[in-house]
Amino acid sequence: MSRFFSNKYRSLVPYTPGEQPTERKYIKLNTNESPFPPSDKAVAAAAEAARLLQLYPDPTCGELTAAVATLCGVQADEVLLTNGSDEILNFAFMAFCDDEHPAVFPDISYGFYKVFAELNGVPYRTVPLKDDLSIDPADYAAAGGTVFIANPNAPTGLALSPAEVEGILQANPNNVVVIDEAYVDFGAESCVSLVHKYDNLLVTQTFSKSRSMAGARLGFGVGCAALIQDLNTVKYSTNPYNINRMTMAAGLGVLADEAYTQANCRAVCATRTQTREALLQLGFEVAESKTNFLFARHRGFGGAELYAKLKENGILVRHFNQPRIQDYIRITIGSSQEMQVFVNTLRTILEEC
Amino acid sequence: MSRFFSNKYRSLVPYTPGEQPTERKYIKLNTNESPFPPSDKAVAAAAEAARLLQLYPDPTCGELTAAVATLCGVQADEVLLTNGSDEILNFAFMAFCDDEHPAVFPDISYGFYKVFAELNGVPYRTVPLKDDLSIDPADYAAAGGTVFIANPNAPTGLALSPAEVEGILQANPNNVVVIDEAYVDFGAESCVSLVHKYDNLLVTQTFSKSRSMAGARLGFGVGCAALIQDLNTVKYSTNPYNINRMTMAAGLGVLADEAYTQANCRAVCATRTQTREALLQLGFEVAESKTNFLFARHRGFGGAELYAKLKENGILVRHFNQPRIQDYIRITIGSSQEMQVFVNTLRTILEEC
Repeated sequence: MSRFFSNKYRSLVPYTPGEQPTERKYIKLNTNESPFPPSDKAVAAAAEAARLLQLYPDPTCGELTAAVATLCGVQADEVLLTNGSDEILNFAFMAFCDDEHPAVFPDISYGFYKVFAELNGVPYRTVPLKDDLSIDPADYAAAGGTVFIANPNAPTGLALSPAEVEGILQANPNNVVVIDEAYVDFGAESCVSLVHKYDNLLVTQTFSKSRSMAGARLGFGVGCAALIQDLNTVKYSTNPYNINRMTMAAGLGVLADEAYTQANCRAVCATRTQTREALLQLGFEVAESKTNFLFARHRGFGGAELYAKLKENGILVRHFNQPRIQDYIRITIGSSQEMQVFVNTLRTILEEC
Repeated sequence: MSRFFSNKYRSLVPYTPGEQPTERKYIKLNTNESPFPPSDKAVAAAAEAARLLQLYPDPTCGELTAAVATLCGVQADEVLLTNGSDEILNFAFMAFCDDEHPAVFPDISYGFYKVFAELNGVPYRTVPLKDDLSIDPADYAAAGGTVFIANPNAPTGLALSPAEVEGILQANPNNVVVIDEAYVDFGAESCVSLVHKYDNLLVTQTFSKSRSMAGARLGFGVGCAALIQDLNTVKYSTNPYNINRMTMAAGLGVLADEAYTQANCRAVCATRTQTREALLQLGFEVAESKTNFLFARHRGFGGAELYAKLKENGILVRHFNQPRIQDYIRITIGSSQEMQVFVNTLRTILEEC
C-alpha cells in the first residue's frame, strides 16, 4: 500500500476471482465457464470487427442494445450493456445505494456484493439463508434498502419463482430490487418481463455462461427507462466507451445463433442431471441446481479437503472458506467427458480414504 | 431520472463523447482516432483469441502487462492495464483523491477530469492556463492536492518537458501527480522513466491513438509498485476481468509490430506539419501541437460557426462551447487525403463568407 492511498479504501478487501491458471493443464470446473466454444457467428463477427479497431466503438451500443431488447421482449431504452455483469452490478450499487438506502442481500451469495458495498461506502445488511440454503422471500418483506438477489443464487444453485420475486417487489415499493440472473438460462425462469409491471426492478444478465462469452466481457441490465437512464448517467460519467468493438460484434453474432445457445443449455442441464445422480450415489448431498454448477457436500470429507485432493488430480473446483458452506464444493458442469473424469476421480479419492 | 436515483448523483453531468455517427458518411476529424488501420498482427491475434471466448480472460493480464512493462522500461508490477485510459484515470481519482486530497487540474484540459471528480464526490480546483493556453509549472507548486495534467494537453496540443514535470513532482512530494500521456507518441517526451525516481508519479497512456486501437479499449498506468498495488485493490473491487481476451491479444499483436506504430506516428506528424502550414496561410492561429490534432482559431469566424459549416460539408471537427476556447476548433489529423479535403473545404467556406 502506498502512503497516498485514500483512507476510504485502506481496509477494502477486493474480490478474489476463481483460479485462472494460464497453463491450462487442469480440468477447470471452478469458474462456471461454458464447456462449449463460442458460436461460429460470434467468432466471425469479432474477427471482422477487429479490422476497424482504429475507430471508437459506438458508445450507445445501438445495434446490440436493440438486439438484446428484442431477446428480452423490452424496448431499447430499457436495456444497458456493460463490460461484464460485474459492471452493471457496480453501477447499481453506485446509483441506488447510499446511507439512506443500504444494500440488503443474502449472507451466502455472490461474494462481490459485499465488495461493491464496501467499495462504494454503502452500509449493508445480510439476510441468512434458511437451513436448506434456500432464500425465504418473507425475509425480504420491507427490507429497508436496495435488495440484491442472485436468482438462481450462487453458489447454491437454488432459484426463486417469478411469483416469489414479485412478492419481494411488492413488499419493497420504495426500494430498487436487483435480480442478478447470471445463471438463469439453465432452467430457472427469468423475471425480465416484470420490468413493465414494477418500476423498482432491475434484472441483470450476462453473456458469460450460456453464451460461451466469459472471455468477451458482456453483461446487461434491464429495467424501466428511468432506471436505465440513471445507470446511463453513471456509465457516461465512468467509462462511456465501456464495450469494445469486438465484444459488441460477438454479442450480435451469438444472438443471431440462438439455436446454438439453447442446444448448449440443454446439454449442460442433461450433464448436470447425470453428474448429480452420480454424486448422490457417491454419498454426496447435492442441492437441486438450476444453474451450470452443482453445490455439494459429503459427510466424510470437508470441502477444503475435497478441493485439494481434486486439484492434486488435475481438477479445479471452487471451495469457499466461509461459515455455513465450508463443507461444500461448487462444481461447474463441464463437458460430458470432463464430468465422467471428475466423477471417476472423485470415486477414487473417496475409496482411497 | 428515477425516484430511486441516489442524491449523490442527481446533479451529475456526464461526459459528452465526440459525435460517433454510425453511418460513416463524414470525414471524422473529431475524436482523435488514427487514420491508419490496426496492425495486421493485432487483427490476427484478436481473431485467434475470439476462438476461446468461453473462458474468462487472465485477470492479471500477465503476458500483456509484461510486454507493456518492456515497452516502458519498467517492471511488470509497475504497470496496470485498464479498459481504456478513462478507467485508469477514474481509478486514480478513486484511489488518490478525497476530501483531504482534492483534485487539481488545468481549467482547459480533458473534460473528463471534472466529471471524475464529481462522480467520486471529490472537491476539485482548476488552475487557469496562461493566455497562450500553455501550462505554467509554477502554478502547480504546492498544489495542495492530487494533480492531473494531460501532457501534451488536450485540446491545446501543447506539451511540458520532463524537466518541467519533475519540477511539479518535486514541489508536491506528498501528493500524487498524474501525467496523462494519451497523446505522447506524436512528438512529446514521455515521463515514464521518472517513475523510478518519484514515488508520487503515475503516468497514464492509451493504445487508442498511436496504436490505432480506440475500438479495442486498452489503456494503462505506470507508477511505482505501491501505487500500482493501490490501483489493483480498486480494480479487483470494481471489475477484476476488466480486459477481454480479444483486446488483450490485439495489444500483444500491436506491440510486436512497433515499426508499424512508429511509421504511423511519423506520418501523422508530417501531415500535421502540412495541415498547420495550410491553416496558417488561411489566416488561422494554430498552436504548436505535439499531438495528433491541431487547435486553431480564425479571427473572422467563431468556433461554433466553423464546426457547423464543416459538418454541413461532411467533415466533423470538435468544438468546445466553453469559456476561453469557444473560438477554437480541434481538428484531428486524418490521412493526407482527408486533410487535403479538409483544407480545400475550409478554403471554400472562408471564401464564401
